[in-house]
Amino acid sequence: MKKSLKELSELVGGEISGENVFIKGVAKAEEAKEGEITFAVSGRFLKKAEQSKASAVIVSLEVKEFNKPIIRVKNPRLAFAQLLEFFTPQRFRFLGVHTTAIIGKNVKIGQRVTVGPYSVVEDGAILGDDVYLSSFTYLGRGVSVGKGSFFHPRVTVLDGTSIGERVIIHSGAVIGSDGFGFVKKEDGSYYKIPQVGRVIVEDEVEIGANVSIDRATTGETRIGKGTKIDNLVHIAHNVKVGENVVMVALVGISGSSSIGDGVILAGQAGVTEHVNIGSGAMVAAKAGVTKDIPPNLFVSGFPARNHAKQKRIKAVTYRLPEILKRIERLEKLV
Amino acid sequence: MKKSLKELSELVGGEISGENVFIKGVAKAEEAKEGEITFAVSGRFLKKAEQSKASAVIVSLEVKEFNKPIIRVKNPRLAFAQLLEFFTPQRFRFLGVHTTAIIGKNVKIGQRVTVGPYSVVEDGAILGDDVYLSSFTYLGRGVSVGKGSFFHPRVTVLDGTSIGERVIIHSGAVIGSDGFGFVKKEDGSYYKIPQVGRVIVEDEVEIGANVSIDRATTGETRIGKGTKIDNLVHIAHNVKVGENVVMVALVGISGSSSIGDGVILAGQAGVTEHVNIGSGAMVAAKAGVTKDIPPNLFVSGFPARNHAKQKRIKAVTYRLPEILKRIERLEKLV
Amino acid sequence: MKKSLKELSELVGGEISGENVFIKGVAKAEEAKEGEITFAVSGRFLKKAEQSKASAVIVSLEVKEFNKPIIRVKNPRLAFAQLLEFFTPQRFRFLGVHTTAIIGKNVKIGQRVTVGPYSVVEDGAILGDDVYLSSFTYLGRGVSVGKGSFFHPRVTVLDGTSIGERVIIHSGAVIGSDGFGFVKKEDGSYYKIPQVGRVIVEDEVEIGANVSIDRATTGETRIGKGTKIDNLVHIAHNVKVGENVVMVALVGISGSSSIGDGVILAGQAGVTEHVNIGSGAMVAAKAGVTKDIPPNLFVSGFPARNHAKQKRIKAVTYRLPEILKRIERLEKLV
Repeated sequence: MKKSLKELSELVGGEISGENVFIKGVAKAEEAKEGEITFAVSGRFLKKAEQSKASAVIVSLEVKEFNKPIIRVKNPRLAFAQLLEFFTPQRFRFLGVHTTAIIGKNVKIGQRVTVGPYSVVEDGAILGDDVYLSSFTYLGRGVSVGKGSFFHPRVTVLDGTSIGERVIIHSGAVIGSDGFGFVKKEDGSYYKIPQVGRVIVEDEVEIGANVSIDRATTGETRIGKGTKIDNLVHIAHNVKVGENVVMVALVGISGSSSIGDGVILAGQAGVTEHVNIGSGAMVAAKAGVTKDIPPNLFVSGFPARNHAKQKRIKAVTYRLPEILKRIERLEKLV
Repeated sequence: MKKSLKELSELVGGEISGENVFIKGVAKAEEAKEGEITFAVSGRFLKKAEQSKASAVIVSLEVKEFNKPIIRVKNPRLAFAQLLEFFTPQRFRFLGVHTTAIIGKNVKIGQRVTVGPYSVVEDGAILGDDVYLSSFTYLGRGVSVGKGSFFHPRVTVLDGTSIGERVIIHSGAVIGSDGFGFVKKEDGSYYKIPQVGRVIVEDEVEIGANVSIDRATTGETRIGKGTKIDNLVHIAHNVKVGENVVMVALVGISGSSSIGDGVILAGQAGVTEHVNIGSGAMVAAKAGVTKDIPPNLFVSGFPARNHAKQKRIKAVTYRLPEILKRIERLEKLV
Repeated sequence: MKKSLKELSELVGGEISGENVFIKGVAKAEEAKEGEITFAVSGRFLKKAEQSKASAVIVSLEVKEFNKPIIRVKNPRLAFAQLLEFFTPQRFRFLGVHTTAIIGKNVKIGQRVTVGPYSVVEDGAILGDDVYLSSFTYLGRGVSVGKGSFFHPRVTVLDGTSIGERVIIHSGAVIGSDGFGFVKKEDGSYYKIPQVGRVIVEDEVEIGANVSIDRATTGETRIGKGTKIDNLVHIAHNVKVGENVVMVALVGISGSSSIGDGVILAGQAGVTEHVNIGSGAMVAAKAGVTKDIPPNLFVSGFPARNHAKQKRIKAVTYRLPEILKRIERLEKLV
């Protein structure tokens, strides 16, 4: 496929400047070859794009001068994603239910549903139209999967879980495992609290590879619409995650906590039990949240506190050996 | 099913106070509906239970006045777990060995054993009575699984592993992967140390989703009786875990360390190689244990130290910007 | 099998001292039985070996006196690994393609290739000679696996990934999952950036259980020759990992970062996006790398800094309660 820069600019709602070159692909600046288009948002990336082999660059509206043909748009990253999608051949096509798939009783299957080889779909499951389940899918009893959801190979969704529409789940993810709930007995051993609740995953959620999301003890664990979860994240029982939340890899959320809309949890952050993180808050990498966080606050450290304050404290901490010497000097003087 | 409060109190060895209402289910306070019973341990949870829609509440012996019918017991949380179990329909029933399960040579299978679809059981495995292996189980050569153990779908247990009785293993867990052992050669490359030991999991252990437990280099990695392991935990080769240990999600234990009975490791904690954690010790979330910890000590931070001391240090750390100003003032005065 | 100490010393290029005993196995000191050989590198381990039940010990060239027969070698740990390999029966043998394996179109299969039960190999995959794929392997379209590579049960390798020769991959690992890339839209929701790049795993890499390695957005994620990755590690899109890198369990590497040759990342360390870690650098357990690290530097803490400096700062931090008292005393005096 080959398209003129003009045609591409119409696809992304942008304006072109420079020669109306033909483009046959999309790539990041460092990998771009002749005939491809890349994008650049700010300073050093603009320079990198100018020096790249790309034949054209998607830039923001403010960029005036450039040594290559450009498409100017409001959000260059979004336009890049859109063109990448445009140029990418659809990787998956409707295949139907594979002869080796084991389908239980009273399973409802919509139009154009794919169930890959060696999948197991238990009794009472419901698959909406255009659902694509790759090889080795496991769906427990009464699981429902909404229209257009896509599971990569080897996804495990346990009994009673509800998955919304256009949800993407990556390989190795486990949704609906038992919550980690025990009562300590007098002899020091633990008694298992039955975990009889379930998991609700709302529309347009994406769940990474080898993630685990536990079912509620009673009631539900809920992942809000549009939330994106990276690989190896753990979400405990009865957690409520809002809409458009981002959780980077290796984050852990303990039981019954709630995460507001639009919250960002950076890599390896952790959240203790029964706390609320307000909408729009941001939790730095490796931070540990131990109490409620107000909306829109940026917190870091362990225990997690206002990041601006943490930075001031950290700056003084780095000077501690010098500070100790100053105290020693003062003690000699006094 | 519907039972009177009196009948339920007998099941959990408690005493009732208030109307002998009929109860048809069990739920946490926030989810409880009319006709259901909930539980409450302390102050704010008692209030929450009073305000809930529950028709009755399990409370501790000390609670005298309450605005709903109650069952008084020594351990409300335990009674809650027992009633939850009582009201929960058994999710799994004996299904036998599925026709698609591949069973190797010299495999011994006890009474009432279930082996789910698309499972592979290698030569010489031994399955005790009432073992339940869900879909996609993999058991390596010579693996033994004790009576009444339950595997959720997609558990991988590699060659030679011994699993005790009434063990529960969740989806995606891998037991018996190679230890991470290499010798650095002069050219900077690594030579793999064969990992020929095995893993022993004692009775009543529970292992979470996507956990990994490595086999020993030689000898054994051992998980003691009654220990509970949350999701995404890593346990390295030759680790010895005692009885009734609790490991919360994303904990990592390095090679050859030993964890005493009753130890609690909170989320994302880590333990370095060749250290011993004494019985009853507690390791705070995100703490990093770098040397031996005496019994019953509560440690936090990295490197992990006595938590009481760490708190005093942290309190002063937060005052560092102020402390620096005080030093500057002193310097001007002197 | 039984070999004289002399014969074993020739296998590892060492010299013997003491009685030429017969040896029938290899074990770590704490597990060694009579008739077995163990190894010891330094002080307390030498003592442990002397007190063990082992009949002989591999030691370094410097060891002169010892109460048991010894083999002296340059690298005792390496000799131990070599003898362990020598005494270990080959666990796996050529089995061919199992009748239940589903093999796509245009798949090229070399000599002596094993494909285990319930595996799925998609169209266009290429398997080199002596490749061993255990049960439940998933290979996506166009995946290539080089000569002699070994996959434990339940490995997932997604479309387009290239795996080198003599690579070992453990159960539950996912190679080629989508990178975590989204563009925030004006309404707060996220637009998925298609992930159309791939993963290249070079020769002699080992990848642990339940690891996830994401494909590149465009271009490639690359794992260099001889690199060893422990369990539950996350490697994001477009990361470049050099040769002979070691990553201990639960490490996370964010997008587009590069890790130089011979770098060691200890357990639960993390690396932010778009940073470079120089060759030979070492990152302590739980450290968080937030900016470029020069070659050969040992860093710790968060943000990760020169470890020697961090230790000095930490030492003063532990004295903060005392320091505060000294300041208070000064204030009274002045």
